[in-house]
Amino acid sequence: MLVVKIGGAAGNNMDTVCEDIAALIKQGQKVILVHGGSDETNAVSEKLGHPPKFVTSPSGFSSRYTDRETLEIFAMVTSGKINTLLVERLQKLGVNAFGLSGVDGRLLEAKRKEAVRAVENGRVRMLHDDHTGTIQTVNAALLQTLMDAGLTPVVAPLAISPEGVALNVDADRAAAMIAGALKAESLVILTNVPGLMRHFPDESTLMPNIERAKLGEALKFAEGRMKKKVLGASEAIDQGVQRVIFADSRVHFPVSSALSGKGTVIA
Amino acid sequence: MLVVKIGGAAGNNMDTVCEDIAALIKQGQKVILVHGGSDETNAVSEKLGHPPKFVTSPSGFSSRYTDRETLEIFAMVTSGKINTLLVERLQKLGVNAFGLSGVDGRLLEAKRKEAVRAVENGRVRMLHDDHTGTIQTVNAALLQTLMDAGLTPVVAPLAISPEGVALNVDADRAAAMIAGALKAESLVILTNVPGLMRHFPDESTLMPNIERAKLGEALKFAEGRMKKKVLGASEAIDQGVQRVIFADSRVHFPVSSALSGKGTVIA
Repeated sequence: MLVVKIGGAAGNNMDTVCEDIAALIKQGQKVILVHGGSDETNAVSEKLGHPPKFVTSPSGFSSRYTDRETLEIFAMVTSGKINTLLVERLQKLGVNAFGLSGVDGRLLEAKRKEAVRAVENGRVRMLHDDHTGTIQTVNAALLQTLMDAGLTPVVAPLAISPEGVALNVDADRAAAMIAGALKAESLVILTNVPGLMRHFPDESTLMPNIERAKLGEALKFAEGRMKKKVLGASEAIDQGVQRVIFADSRVHFPVSSALSGKGTVIA
Repeated sequence: MLVVKIGGAAGNNMDTVCEDIAALIKQGQKVILVHGGSDETNAVSEKLGHPPKFVTSPSGFSSRYTDRETLEIFAMVTSGKINTLLVERLQKLGVNAFGLSGVDGRLLEAKRKEAVRAVENGRVRMLHDDHTGTIQTVNAALLQTLMDAGLTPVVAPLAISPEGVALNVDADRAAAMIAGALKAESLVILTNVPGLMRHFPDESTLMPNIERAKLGEALKFAEGRMKKKVLGASEAIDQGVQRVIFADSRVHFPVSSALSGKGTVIA
């Protein structure tokens, strides 16, 4: 079992990723694909007159503020567009792909963030209508049912709260939780850089291997979105995934290349 | 087995429909929900700066022209937004709903319209990049697999061509084809009018019963979107569905009310 996460950021090449995945599936590999969609959500939000809003926590972290309208736009873009186009692309390549989001059949159950602390004009405010969550459980049986039917699941990063509220979740951590729940052999997290670099963006400082025990230390080299990928990697390994690979989506055969050890391998 | 089609047009009340469906499911009824989304697609298309385009055929019929960009917007709105929100609403009511579109696992395979004949400035033009299809086959085994797993399918009106191209399909006819493939007992098509009227919009001329043999004749009373509903009804009955009911979505318990015989019953 292999879980592949592909980002939505500019520069990721969906075509080569899908071709590579299709070839692996034809060789008998079982694959689950998980995708993101933040950048396109931002673009569509702007066009729809509801520009994305980012808030800064008192400790200095920036995160998306997901009000109800933003959640609905996020669902449109990730589950409606990116997911459908990935499924279509894989179907064209002969893979019986099947798109779903974490809301469907309660695939991903998440705890909703009660409140977000945001610093505005030097004062801390609590924002209560955020629609973001942290995944608590993965319905592995549902994914197994789909795979037993010969389908390749393609998962959009939405989850549902125990009360039945749809939530935006981080796609890297969703992929990590899914890989963990299914005891996947490998989790490949594709991105538009070659892996984790000691001095980003100097690619000559790529870290080819990191032991699980040293991941906490490695976190300090992670810039921006790479932080959540490192966090996801820890979660996946702790749940029994044998190795997590951060790899470049822009090369030919990005998944096979990652599986052969290119990128940053965490084990 | 019951198939319910709910429209996306203004005036349809999703809350009462979902509450009624949840109550029926708790009583042991198996349900598949199919939905549309044309009106909201038009609104989002306008906002995104790609206004909907309707073409008129030489015989005077008007239909949506779905270029690639429109198809992607249609997928965003129907599969991403309307579908996700219906699944969320049902999950809140305790139903283990599961959203999918006809692209997923090739649920709905359709023949793409080769070309659309459009009259423009008095001349007939052929438009070749339309992304609309006519459903040929329904993957009933896939729906059965989902239902055997205790899930309630909620279907968005997209299909896939044999070549793997995503297509926009008519939701009423999708519901009819699904009901036919599953040999459903009843197909309830909810709309924002009480049923088929002899003199639309005079509700006192509602036709309470129509025999299958007289459906062709009834077609001449059908205005606008009702035409495709009548066409869908014929297809469903011909495939073994026992009865098709056109009913009002705006009442309390719209589905139970239709099943008790309110609306236009075709058998």
